[in-house]
Amino acid sequence: MLNVIQADSNDVPAADRGLAYGDGLFETIRMRGRQAVLRSLHLDRMVADAGRLAIPVHRDQLDAEVERAGIIHGDAYGASDWVLKLILTRGSGGRGYRLPEKNCRPNLIVSVSAMPPFPDSRGVVADFSQFPLTVNPQLAGIKTLNRLEQVMASRDFTGREFELIMRDASGNLVEGTRTNLFVRHGNVWTTPPVSSLAVAGVMRKYVIDCLRETGSEVREEAVPPSVVSRSGFRGLYLVNSVVGIVCVRRLAGVELPVDGGLETICDPLKTLE
Amino acid sequence: MLNVIQADSNDVPAADRGLAYGDGLFETIRMRGRQAVLRSLHLDRMVADAGRLAIPVHRDQLDAEVERAGIIHGDAYGASDWVLKLILTRGSGGRGYRLPEKNCRPNLIVSVSAMPPFPDSRGVVADFSQFPLTVNPQLAGIKTLNRLEQVMASRDFTGREFELIMRDASGNLVEGTRTNLFVRHGNVWTTPPVSSLAVAGVMRKYVIDCLRETGSEVREEAVPPSVVSRSGFRGLYLVNSVVGIVCVRRLAGVELPVDGGLETICDPLKTLE
Repeated sequence: MLNVIQADSNDVPAADRGLAYGDGLFETIRMRGRQAVLRSLHLDRMVADAGRLAIPVHRDQLDAEVERAGIIHGDAYGASDWVLKLILTRGSGGRGYRLPEKNCRPNLIVSVSAMPPFPDSRGVVADFSQFPLTVNPQLAGIKTLNRLEQVMASRDFTGREFELIMRDASGNLVEGTRTNLFVRHGNVWTTPPVSSLAVAGVMRKYVIDCLRETGSEVREEAVPPSVVSRSGFRGLYLVNSVVGIVCVRRLAGVELPVDGGLETICDPLKTLE
Repeated sequence: MLNVIQADSNDVPAADRGLAYGDGLFETIRMRGRQAVLRSLHLDRMVADAGRLAIPVHRDQLDAEVERAGIIHGDAYGASDWVLKLILTRGSGGRGYRLPEKNCRPNLIVSVSAMPPFPDSRGVVADFSQFPLTVNPQLAGIKTLNRLEQVMASRDFTGREFELIMRDASGNLVEGTRTNLFVRHGNVWTTPPVSSLAVAGVMRKYVIDCLRETGSEVREEAVPPSVVSRSGFRGLYLVNSVVGIVCVRRLAGVELPVDGGLETICDPLKTLE
């Protein structure tokens, strides 16, 4: 059983392992009224990745809490979308890093917030973060609570950029602080493979599926910095499940072609009933 | 100013960035009565590493809280040592990963526990963790709240090992889940450099300083797995500030020489007044 904590009126036990060690994971979900956008992708991911961390949770418990949050908060936002955040931690227990013999009771911390401002649909400014990204192969892609690299990278924001792109030790473009990336050459799309990612976003999966369904080729491959000057380059895109898809019009001071249309092909609002 | 939270009677705000992102760091301090063992090394490290994370804290605030904890809890443990844990988080605030424009008020979460059992002074059993260790060069050595790798590595404990040693992508021995390591060849001691470490323990620093003061040579170099079969190998040691120093008598099923004496040279209790 989960211990559900509504963050607007309750605190979290000081012994929670999410606080002590980042021993947990989270989802940030765009809500429209009472409905969750990309609901299945979010909750499927949370269940699958909790399994990788050996945190026991059932999909129907998460479904019930999303539905409950929609009922409690959805009407108050009127016509405005809003954001639901679910933090799932292993709970309290164990000796130091070691897990207890029997499973702890996980905590699910539920919080809500207003939507962030939408990015300029004509394209955004991005730069490179100087903070390197390292990914443990066993934790690749999991949206764990170990996010200090993204916090530290975010210190490089000057106020002019929509996003900062993080690179690995080889200089490859991996992901933004809060977005995944796609590049387009002709009709071929490339995005870094899950094994290289800190966070494999649900919007990334949705975009890959949409592109493949519409007959486009999507390659999951490393993205070296030379990619934007390669022949046939048509656009660099940043995606996440809250703000959707945005094209980068300037990267580290270099103007890039702005190629629209992806946001129409892959509109996650289509998934709402 | 810090917001001090006594964990035995208080919860933590659900919006704390330590919970959300592991945006903070911690110290685990052995206490004897009202006194903190290796107090200066612990608090110097916390202030220095908080500075690397841009979390504002003053040394005198930490000193005051350690002293207060000693007064509140020290007498109750009688002749038994005990453990004081300090978690320092950035506090609540900011938008997503981004820090707020003005500093948040950091939270200092103070908790106490009994000492863990001391390891067998005749030597302990260790094995290798199959969970790889990755270290961001910008965060190397900082005892941050991003400790999911150590949690996952600890799942490999079978109950027979005192410690599991984690290796980097090249197979070098880096550190235990909760200890740093030293190897001895003749009178030369080797320990992995801080730049390669997830956690640069205060006991590691204390041991290096003690050895150098007594005329021994200490090299901060990578430790390949072949080190235990190299000519002149005299011992493998695990150290942390709570349990002290222990020699490994069996590593991954291989018997090792047990060479005592380091714990006498480097007894941190000598630092108590």
